Amino acid sequence: MGGDHGPAVTVAAAVAFANREPDVEFLLVGLESDIQMELKKLNAQQHPRLKIVHASEVVAMDDPVEVALRRKKDSSMRVAVTQVKDGLAHACVSAGNTGALMAVSRYVLKTMQGVDRPAICSMLPNQTNRPTYMLDLGANVDCEPQHLHQFAIMGSALVSALEGKERPSVGLLNVGEEDIKGNDVVKKTALLLRADHERGLLNFYGNVEGNDIFKGTTDIVVCDGFVGNVTLKAVEGLGRFVKTTLTSSFKSSILNMLGAVIARGALKSISRTMNPSNYNGGSLLGLRGLVFKSHGSADKYSYEWAIQRAFDAAKNDVLSRISSSMAKLMPAQDQPLPADQEPLNQKTA
Amino acid sequence: MGGDHGPAVTVAAAVAFANREPDVEFLLVGLESDIQMELKKLNAQQHPRLKIVHASEVVAMDDPVEVALRRKKDSSMRVAVTQVKDGLAHACVSAGNTGALMAVSRYVLKTMQGVDRPAICSMLPNQTNRPTYMLDLGANVDCEPQHLHQFAIMGSALVSALEGKERPSVGLLNVGEEDIKGNDVVKKTALLLRADHERGLLNFYGNVEGNDIFKGTTDIVVCDGFVGNVTLKAVEGLGRFVKTTLTSSFKSSILNMLGAVIARGALKSISRTMNPSNYNGGSLLGLRGLVFKSHGSADKYSYEWAIQRAFDAAKNDVLSRISSSMAKLMPAQDQPLPADQEPLNQKTA
Repeated sequence: MGGDHGPAVTVAAAVAFANREPDVEFLLVGLESDIQMELKKLNAQQHPRLKIVHASEVVAMDDPVEVALRRKKDSSMRVAVTQVKDGLAHACVSAGNTGALMAVSRYVLKTMQGVDRPAICSMLPNQTNRPTYMLDLGANVDCEPQHLHQFAIMGSALVSALEGKERPSVGLLNVGEEDIKGNDVVKKTALLLRADHERGLLNFYGNVEGNDIFKGTTDIVVCDGFVGNVTLKAVEGLGRFVKTTLTSSFKSSILNMLGAVIARGALKSISRTMNPSNYNGGSLLGLRGLVFKSHGSADKYSYEWAIQRAFDAAKNDVLSRISSSMAKLMPAQDQPLPADQEPLNQKTA
Repeated sequence: MGGDHGPAVTVAAAVAFANREPDVEFLLVGLESDIQMELKKLNAQQHPRLKIVHASEVVAMDDPVEVALRRKKDSSMRVAVTQVKDGLAHACVSAGNTGALMAVSRYVLKTMQGVDRPAICSMLPNQTNRPTYMLDLGANVDCEPQHLHQFAIMGSALVSALEGKERPSVGLLNVGEEDIKGNDVVKKTALLLRADHERGLLNFYGNVEGNDIFKGTTDIVVCDGFVGNVTLKAVEGLGRFVKTTLTSSFKSSILNMLGAVIARGALKSISRTMNPSNYNGGSLLGLRGLVFKSHGSADKYSYEWAIQRAFDAAKNDVLSRISSSMAKLMPAQDQPLPADQEPLNQKTA
């Protein structure tokens, strides 16, 4: 139900994805009548791998987190995440309100053992043929070194699963390459990552700068959610500005239009490389279940990409890879026992 | 002597600027023989408004700040800044090592009354016909609310002088527009800026997000130097990536090349709007003298823009505007007396 266009985009994307991917099954969660209407439009009411799960409420894009969390208990968002918790779905995809999705997912699914705070991880294009994964993109505006450390481990497990790369490289976003650069949090994080690198748990490259994101210097770029969110929105803003300028320049005269028509191959190839739609789909990492966030403004094509990420993550068992990576991190004595057991010393105390 | 190309760029740009701007006089500071050689190449040895000031040392682009500050006391950088301090120059322009330039300028010129920390402020293009000024871009990686507050006041005075706009608008860079968004530092800064707005000292717009930089939502965007530096480098990186992709796509076939030739008007207009050279020249704000930093990789055209900023700032008396703005900020009892006077109570204590 979420995003700027609701089921008109999400249902249409699910139908298209189901038609080309025989291994997928969808639970379409939301207002049954709205979803039925979209399926009817698409002649997909009888599709054997599309099932509707009714949810009577909808989290609005501007609902405060508290409303999503405490008042709308039968929201499509919450019911969808609950499908994952109950083992009825491998992953949840939503174009809804990011803050609400994170809060609801955290509340319903809980965080993974060893993870203090979940993070949002997305892909960005770069000059190489593999994307740059960047996290956190806004879930945590204040981070301590151990949080950035956990983001590095989670991002590494994700990329290794999705890109089939055994030891993806991790860069720490900073204002310079040298060790002496940066603020206190970043310097302390570098020490933690360096130690992991020496123990063979992580392929830590060192500090990277803003431009390295688009150079593709490392597979993963780690930063706090404030920096990540501002940077992501700035580059999206620049992208839109470039696109507007290109379009209006090419339309400014008959000659320019003609040039654009003749060079349309070039323009298509630029759009293929740069199109943000191809990079849609952020993972909410660190939860006991897979949740993916599409851009709210996504169209059908772009939303299909978010579904693709969720599908790939489920297929490549991202969840157990992350939890086994996190387990390696924790010293044995720190590992909490399963929830139904209490440590002995507490029982006897 | 600084930057990737040294006097080949800086001297050439100064000559070109002097030739089109009759009101300018240059002190070319550095190794006399190197500068003479460049002037000879350009047939400008007898130029009446170009004078050489010899300095025997050069701060290298990778020299640590300590070397620039303590060992190379006769560096072109230090001698140039000293010209400003001694009233022999209205402004200094350098393409050298940013950290060194800031440290040397701070040491030689000292900070302005009421300013805890100088900041770096640059222009970025946006969708309107006036640029966005953004600060701090890397001088301060850890900021308290009062520092961001001072940046807002300084940026406002700068833009009002350079753009002739009486009450330029100030946006606070954040992860969302709402007051509840962001980390503690940003929330506290917003309170300070709001109070100034109510006192009529500042035109505070409120929170802005990364994409607002390129929308041109506000004249000034304030952030800490970590966020500013990462964001600036990220957008520069994306800019280079777009340029490379455009160029290689248009060169990928005869047809595409033909299209580019026909649409060259469009491509020129894009380059005019987007060309980072036109935005070269960051101000080191908060010092008792004008210092401008050119990008190290600047070519002659781009370096001329950095000179232009310095020239405009001197002409519009940016310095006294900033210091009078800062004075308004400070409660009367906090205003320190001139350096040669001690407060009475200390004298009698």
